[in-house]
Amino acid sequence: MYFFINDYSEGCHPKILKALTETNEEQTVGYGCDEYCAEAADLILKELDAPQSKVYFFSGGTQTNLTMIASVLRPHQGVIAADTGHINVHESGAIEACGHKVLTIESANGKITAEQAEALIRAHYDDPTAEHMVQPGMIYISNPTELGTIYSKKELQALKLTAQKYSVPLYVDGARLGTALTADNNDLSLADMARYTDAFYIGGTKMGALFGEALIINNQDLQKDFRYIQKQKGGLFAKGRLLGLQFKTLFKDKLYFEIGRTMNETAKMIRKGFSDRGFSFFMKSETNQSFPIIENSLLAKIEKEFKCEFWAKISENQTAVRFCTSWATTKEAVKKLFEYVDEINSNAIKR
Amino acid sequence: MYFFINDYSEGCHPKILKALTETNEEQTVGYGCDEYCAEAADLILKELDAPQSKVYFFSGGTQTNLTMIASVLRPHQGVIAADTGHINVHESGAIEACGHKVLTIESANGKITAEQAEALIRAHYDDPTAEHMVQPGMIYISNPTELGTIYSKKELQALKLTAQKYSVPLYVDGARLGTALTADNNDLSLADMARYTDAFYIGGTKMGALFGEALIINNQDLQKDFRYIQKQKGGLFAKGRLLGLQFKTLFKDKLYFEIGRTMNETAKMIRKGFSDRGFSFFMKSETNQSFPIIENSLLAKIEKEFKCEFWAKISENQTAVRFCTSWATTKEAVKKLFEYVDEINSNAIKR
Amino acid sequence: MYFFINDYSEGCHPKILKALTETNEEQTVGYGCDEYCAEAADLILKELDAPQSKVYFFSGGTQTNLTMIASVLRPHQGVIAADTGHINVHESGAIEACGHKVLTIESANGKITAEQAEALIRAHYDDPTAEHMVQPGMIYISNPTELGTIYSKKELQALKLTAQKYSVPLYVDGARLGTALTADNNDLSLADMARYTDAFYIGGTKMGALFGEALIINNQDLQKDFRYIQKQKGGLFAKGRLLGLQFKTLFKDKLYFEIGRTMNETAKMIRKGFSDRGFSFFMKSETNQSFPIIENSLLAKIEKEFKCEFWAKISENQTAVRFCTSWATTKEAVKKLFEYVDEINSNAIKR
Amino acid sequence: MYFFINDYSEGCHPKILKALTETNEEQTVGYGCDEYCAEAADLILKELDAPQSKVYFFSGGTQTNLTMIASVLRPHQGVIAADTGHINVHESGAIEACGHKVLTIESANGKITAEQAEALIRAHYDDPTAEHMVQPGMIYISNPTELGTIYSKKELQALKLTAQKYSVPLYVDGARLGTALTADNNDLSLADMARYTDAFYIGGTKMGALFGEALIINNQDLQKDFRYIQKQKGGLFAKGRLLGLQFKTLFKDKLYFEIGRTMNETAKMIRKGFSDRGFSFFMKSETNQSFPIIENSLLAKIEKEFKCEFWAKISENQTAVRFCTSWATTKEAVKKLFEYVDEINSNAIKR
Repeated sequence: MYFFINDYSEGCHPKILKALTETNEEQTVGYGCDEYCAEAADLILKELDAPQSKVYFFSGGTQTNLTMIASVLRPHQGVIAADTGHINVHESGAIEACGHKVLTIESANGKITAEQAEALIRAHYDDPTAEHMVQPGMIYISNPTELGTIYSKKELQALKLTAQKYSVPLYVDGARLGTALTADNNDLSLADMARYTDAFYIGGTKMGALFGEALIINNQDLQKDFRYIQKQKGGLFAKGRLLGLQFKTLFKDKLYFEIGRTMNETAKMIRKGFSDRGFSFFMKSETNQSFPIIENSLLAKIEKEFKCEFWAKISENQTAVRFCTSWATTKEAVKKLFEYVDEINSNAIKR
Repeated sequence: MYFFINDYSEGCHPKILKALTETNEEQTVGYGCDEYCAEAADLILKELDAPQSKVYFFSGGTQTNLTMIASVLRPHQGVIAADTGHINVHESGAIEACGHKVLTIESANGKITAEQAEALIRAHYDDPTAEHMVQPGMIYISNPTELGTIYSKKELQALKLTAQKYSVPLYVDGARLGTALTADNNDLSLADMARYTDAFYIGGTKMGALFGEALIINNQDLQKDFRYIQKQKGGLFAKGRLLGLQFKTLFKDKLYFEIGRTMNETAKMIRKGFSDRGFSFFMKSETNQSFPIIENSLLAKIEKEFKCEFWAKISENQTAVRFCTSWATTKEAVKKLFEYVDEINSNAIKR
Repeated sequence: MYFFINDYSEGCHPKILKALTETNEEQTVGYGCDEYCAEAADLILKELDAPQSKVYFFSGGTQTNLTMIASVLRPHQGVIAADTGHINVHESGAIEACGHKVLTIESANGKITAEQAEALIRAHYDDPTAEHMVQPGMIYISNPTELGTIYSKKELQALKLTAQKYSVPLYVDGARLGTALTADNNDLSLADMARYTDAFYIGGTKMGALFGEALIINNQDLQKDFRYIQKQKGGLFAKGRLLGLQFKTLFKDKLYFEIGRTMNETAKMIRKGFSDRGFSFFMKSETNQSFPIIENSLLAKIEKEFKCEFWAKISENQTAVRFCTSWATTKEAVKKLFEYVDEINSNAIKR
Repeated sequence: MYFFINDYSEGCHPKILKALTETNEEQTVGYGCDEYCAEAADLILKELDAPQSKVYFFSGGTQTNLTMIASVLRPHQGVIAADTGHINVHESGAIEACGHKVLTIESANGKITAEQAEALIRAHYDDPTAEHMVQPGMIYISNPTELGTIYSKKELQALKLTAQKYSVPLYVDGARLGTALTADNNDLSLADMARYTDAFYIGGTKMGALFGEALIINNQDLQKDFRYIQKQKGGLFAKGRLLGLQFKTLFKDKLYFEIGRTMNETAKMIRKGFSDRGFSFFMKSETNQSFPIIENSLLAKIEKEFKCEFWAKISENQTAVRFCTSWATTKEAVKKLFEYVDEINSNAIKR
């Protein structure tokens, strides 16, 4: 049985395990004030070319999102997001639990455009009863999106301009950022992420870390007292050095990007495999998630050996599923998947 | 330089590191639905003799506290706690951020008594304007307390009776529970914790785990939909198996208690060391925290080699500090501490 | 200049003013524990034939909605509503500020059906990742809706059955309830409102009271400690007797329904007036709100003498507006409106 | 039976009733954008000599407090208050429900000093673990206090200096402000209130209005988007003109101060009456609340004719009670009270 269900099925990249092992007995101060956190932050900021930015480490993505958003918005403000956005769908109302509405934009591919964001903001301020409505106070996007698509530099720049025009910070959920920045059509660098956003996070949990995310706040106004709120939301990790050490490892020798490329490569093999065999896709994804549409009878057989995730019912007979690759996914595993698919098909023909 | 500043200065117990290493490449499902979490829960519940109880794993203590408390209280309710309680002092208002007041009881030693809790509750209901005040909805205690003291079985039973009488759940923050249950004067078992509380957590982060806490909800009414709220608060860990694996290791062969005993032993050496040299203490602690009162001039010298934590200013010349032992603290380190103290003193005499 | 902009442009029905004047110097206890509140509650409950129900008085509708909803939902739950629902659009995020998502259903006419509610609930529980999503915990509807439409008995019964099936309370916002219950096609009585809902409120502010709303909680489980939460949210009115006295007046001799009928009659005159002159409507409303679509040039002229409210842009040249009648709107005023429209039109023809 | 239980037992001052009656049929726009609100604000601001200040009308005090405080604080901040402060004791946790801790200062007479506030703030910033604690973000005081005492100009100035020094707004709850500003030892003017605070409210409900409070925000930074939050919290009154009209009446010809003086005069009669008869007091109050300590047996007899409010149990035989005067309290009523007391006493002597 092999899992393609998500990108956090395994532990961590061997280099991270090695670093954790080697430093296990060392003593450090807590809560992210240790040397490893400082070194990791330095490595990241160097990559960003953004000396004014600050790095904050978290142990998980929902925590990161809710803390960042809660720290920015005033009580009457909401956050703009694609209706498919993680904060809108899969965080059990974490943003609302902090008091804020998610102001959704319909999205076919997981992305929102600067035009859509501007239209929403203008509709608010143009309404004579605006005071009776939630004020847009922030823009949230994911890169890559929850559907595996990515933003171009031009799209991100446009969003940033809109964000600036209306004084609403732009924040990027980068749970799988490494796969976006190493995708075939990507033209964004990590430095662009700093340049064109007020804050974003570099996901570790889904990118080869044992666990952890690195939130980068570029806008200095948003840095003020951030750690208080991080503590309040349960997001200030006691043994912060575990997070620092992991991100130090990921950003030394650009391991983070190497992992992203690996994940994309196996994902492309998966897409090619299905495409070559005539399958269509629910979504034209570009990163480590792939969404083939499969006949239910075939899917049942595949799932005996290769677990993928249900995504959407397409018809009575067809289902869209998600195949996710991780830092640990091997080309061998993908080859076996398609050998297995071919075997099922050839057996079916024989009968 | 040696750190006695807290119990999370080092990584994790070698057995845990070994388990993490051995299973690193395995694939499991996420969010705590894996086999390791199931095995860990089984081991814990067996120890508790409480088959109706449920175990929920978290990555940190503040998260655990705020999720548990937020899941229980209705909007108009508050939680009773000692004024020294972690939730009242050191969680940046996490409970209030969930909408609830901490109803404090003055405490000299970190503990609250059943009588104090009852008096607070009765004062509320006896007030004709009770509806204009926050209703006590829960009792929070820590065992050991933030001051290193512990509850006896009789004290816990009494609190439970009061809690039942007024239908307010009793919850125990056990960040360092293993040190309480192995303290010299302790008469509580883990099974008693299940018997006499509605919920409690078994701390891992400060007890030899790399990180993580195991929350046990004994009261079945409080289990309903708990995981939704855990997710909402950012407390549902994606790679849940890391938590399961750690607690499996801690509860196999009673490693957890062995660690607790070790921590208490080095702490007792510290207390004896200071006591033998004529120092008095801020608090008569019984677990891994010790609070000697030290002359400032001596303290400055000690801190050149052995870091401890500021606790309270006693006078112009004296300071109460905290020495904390961890799973990794060696008797050797404690001996060196006192050799160093003696050397300072003998140098002082010479001059 | 005459205002058709809303139903709270004037003070209160003369009978209410008289009652306030006559009792002004009397002394009563505060916070709704006085005789007038008791008498008003008795009159209302008699009308409802629901002795187990309880009445709570508020000074405004947003307060009523947010208090009721916050008192029912657990942290991980949201409230189902039409996307046009007042709580979703026009309360500045009051529900989210209490921690809860509004789970919207697309609605063409302001109403939601039992089927839609059931589909949303089932979709939640059928999702294997339900724990990562907001759980539907309540159904909110408005009767009449924000678009002036009304629910039939059959529709309300069906919603109640669905609500019961999934154990989610059904709550009705009745800001203008009197106009729904006296509309031409209405087949619901006030007793039906009690029978088929867990809670609903009888709006006063928009129905001839000086101000105030009467919330009726029929489900006894939801009555527990409600007044605490009412106080917490700023909704427990100090001089409660003002509210009691007004609702006593409204429910003595069925004044409330008389006012509703009056409002509907002038509204029908408005719809007939526009319809007779060939105007179409944005929405087929049945109560005191009417939504004619008017040429912008004509609208500009009308608004010199008769103020109505912008509703929606229909095209470059056409706008949907809202004409609202109140307890104080006279047939004379409506006649003058159409004389004025006719005059504008005849002048236009002359030119 | 006569009520001295509070200052909201009766309706409103006749001049207000007259104004409401005379304008009842007029049409105005809603939500406080009408002429009466504008006129009332003008009259108040003229009195304040503070053209940059803005006035916001509310229907009740708890709403006013929670909206003001919630609009100012960031998530990690709390509000400093006397432990006797209304927001700490009698608002059912309204501030915590908005996410914020009330940081209390022990107070013997209901007041806090600049020194106490400064000590609390410094203790926070001096703590090396400040980030783990709630940051003081605002100072709340009441004038007069809940115990009837008042602030001097010097005291208020000192608090303002401290507030400025640490950039925490100073806010004054003036539920009974008119009684403070007309008390014998008062040296504060309404203009001083504007000069030395960031915001304060002028209470109407307890000062002769039918209901309503006028919040004055002097600090322009705190005015931004305030109405959104007012709406969100249910505090934006639909028929705002009712509030505007009342405050216009109260501030035309200084009626507000006249009412305050009247309330203080009858209160002084009450204090003199008890004092002349040898009673002692729980608190040396200076405004319309008086707190005599009365033998329980006598109290039981008094309460047959004159209702007062329980305040505190002094001993087995003695109780402190509160006698409250209102705009409607007559000297005649106070005389009757003491005739009645004397009669009881003389009957007691006879026997």
